[in-house]
Amino acid sequence: MSLRFERVAVIGVGLIGGSLALAGRRAGLFGEVVGVGRNAANLEDARDRGIADRTTSDLAEMGPVDLAVIAVPVRTTAAIARDLAAHLQPGTLVTDVGSVKQWVVDAAVAELPAGCPFVGAHPIAGSEQTGARAARANLFEDSVCVVTPVDSTPPAARDAIVELWQRVGARVREMTPAEHDRALAWTSHLGHVLSYALARSLGAAAGERRDERDPGDVLALSGPSLRELTRLAGGSGPMWRDIFLTNDRALLATIDSFAAALDELRSAIDRGDAAAIDTFLDLGLATRRRIEDPS
Amino acid sequence: MSLRFERVAVIGVGLIGGSLALAGRRAGLFGEVVGVGRNAANLEDARDRGIADRTTSDLAEMGPVDLAVIAVPVRTTAAIARDLAAHLQPGTLVTDVGSVKQWVVDAAVAELPAGCPFVGAHPIAGSEQTGARAARANLFEDSVCVVTPVDSTPPAARDAIVELWQRVGARVREMTPAEHDRALAWTSHLGHVLSYALARSLGAAAGERRDERDPGDVLALSGPSLRELTRLAGGSGPMWRDIFLTNDRALLATIDSFAAALDELRSAIDRGDAAAIDTFLDLGLATRRRIEDPS
Repeated sequence: MSLRFERVAVIGVGLIGGSLALAGRRAGLFGEVVGVGRNAANLEDARDRGIADRTTSDLAEMGPVDLAVIAVPVRTTAAIARDLAAHLQPGTLVTDVGSVKQWVVDAAVAELPAGCPFVGAHPIAGSEQTGARAARANLFEDSVCVVTPVDSTPPAARDAIVELWQRVGARVREMTPAEHDRALAWTSHLGHVLSYALARSLGAAAGERRDERDPGDVLALSGPSLRELTRLAGGSGPMWRDIFLTNDRALLATIDSFAAALDELRSAIDRGDAAAIDTFLDLGLATRRRIEDPS
Repeated sequence: MSLRFERVAVIGVGLIGGSLALAGRRAGLFGEVVGVGRNAANLEDARDRGIADRTTSDLAEMGPVDLAVIAVPVRTTAAIARDLAAHLQPGTLVTDVGSVKQWVVDAAVAELPAGCPFVGAHPIAGSEQTGARAARANLFEDSVCVVTPVDSTPPAARDAIVELWQRVGARVREMTPAEHDRALAWTSHLGHVLSYALARSLGAAAGERRDERDPGDVLALSGPSLRELTRLAGGSGPMWRDIFLTNDRALLATIDSFAAALDELRSAIDRGDAAAIDTFLDLGLATRRRIEDPS
């Protein structure tokens, strides 16, 4: 028997929630989709683009559904799960798409009724664009989606969420919430911290130099590499603040490891140690090559 | 009277030296070009691609020239200038294209004969590609070239180098070598340090996790943002080692400013201070917007 959810609620109709609705409909996985959100213009976009059959700003008007997808900033998940608990039919499957898993899974399991299983998921896809207008049905093709069942997750619920993501084109990797959070701290969250910190320190330097009427205003000499390194600082501040706060322990460990590496290179430069710099850069290049070609 | 150099030597026929030769010939600025280098295959590429009319691996065979362009890794400039001193005719104009200026200008002025004026230049253009094969005549169009005359520079020499870069399509900015080095430490050299340090710390983490047989190997979950942030670590190690060592004071100051910003964000995350994180990310975003649109 093939997977199908006749009635689906997408709570938060942004890039990810909207794209999952489009992809699920295209794959024949979803029947009616109700979009839940607070931004009236965005909900209108969602109806216009065929993401949702109907929309509401009130969870009480959502009606009975088979699947509820929470697609909101991470720390909002707890409040949404609490509100959902009052409106879900027993047996409703609940999932999310957040970038942090331990905090979300703990909150959802604590807030949702026992008869409504929760399975955390994190599709590693997206762009700097936001909102229902940016959603597209092929966003998850050739992407990786991490699914994070826990000991209490009913196997049928886990299987359904794994199949859902496979059917919209993602390669599913299962891991524990803690494993996910440690890995993503390295591959995503740390990079955002560094990009924001670089933009912040550049801003301070540019401001200082401007005060001195220095003709060498640093930003005027910026090229493609600086735009590339600060691109991640162009993302949604509230979304990233939530990620930093809910994955704080794993993230702090990566920041400390990075800071130790930076200090090692700083020290080699300070003492003019060409051999130590060469070794450091060679090791970095080797990892760069693994990132470029992981096979 | 329009600028023209009947005989030009390009010492180091790589991406930048080769592109300047192609651009200068296309603009009618250069007559005969002799390419000087150590890699026979690269010199053959330079002849095949019309970059140089003839090539040699020996500065003694360069012959008399009107203009000598030094386009080698920064720390090699001193030895090249010393060797050049034995072979230049009085009146030969000498310039370079290096990413660090104070160290290069000091070394060149010290090594070259008094009758051979030196004007430092740094075209801010390029790519991760290297060698004569990567050279192209339009590399400098719409780029910025910093020219760094000093008090002892003859005005006619400065004017010639400014015009040279303008005629190949660059917008010229004049500043002192020290101003250049402080600005580039921010806009280029720091970014390379951070990219190498990120690659280095990721490599250590990936190695550790692999030893633990952890299924969540961090590199397997890397996406576009990690490739982007570590791209600069794919550059030439010897070239960047030279830049780090010759611009060490300015670079160390930027590393320390960055480290202070990183520590500020780390501390806000550690104490769960959402308001402080919001302020930090807002300031970073504002600078990111200035970088994206400097007007």
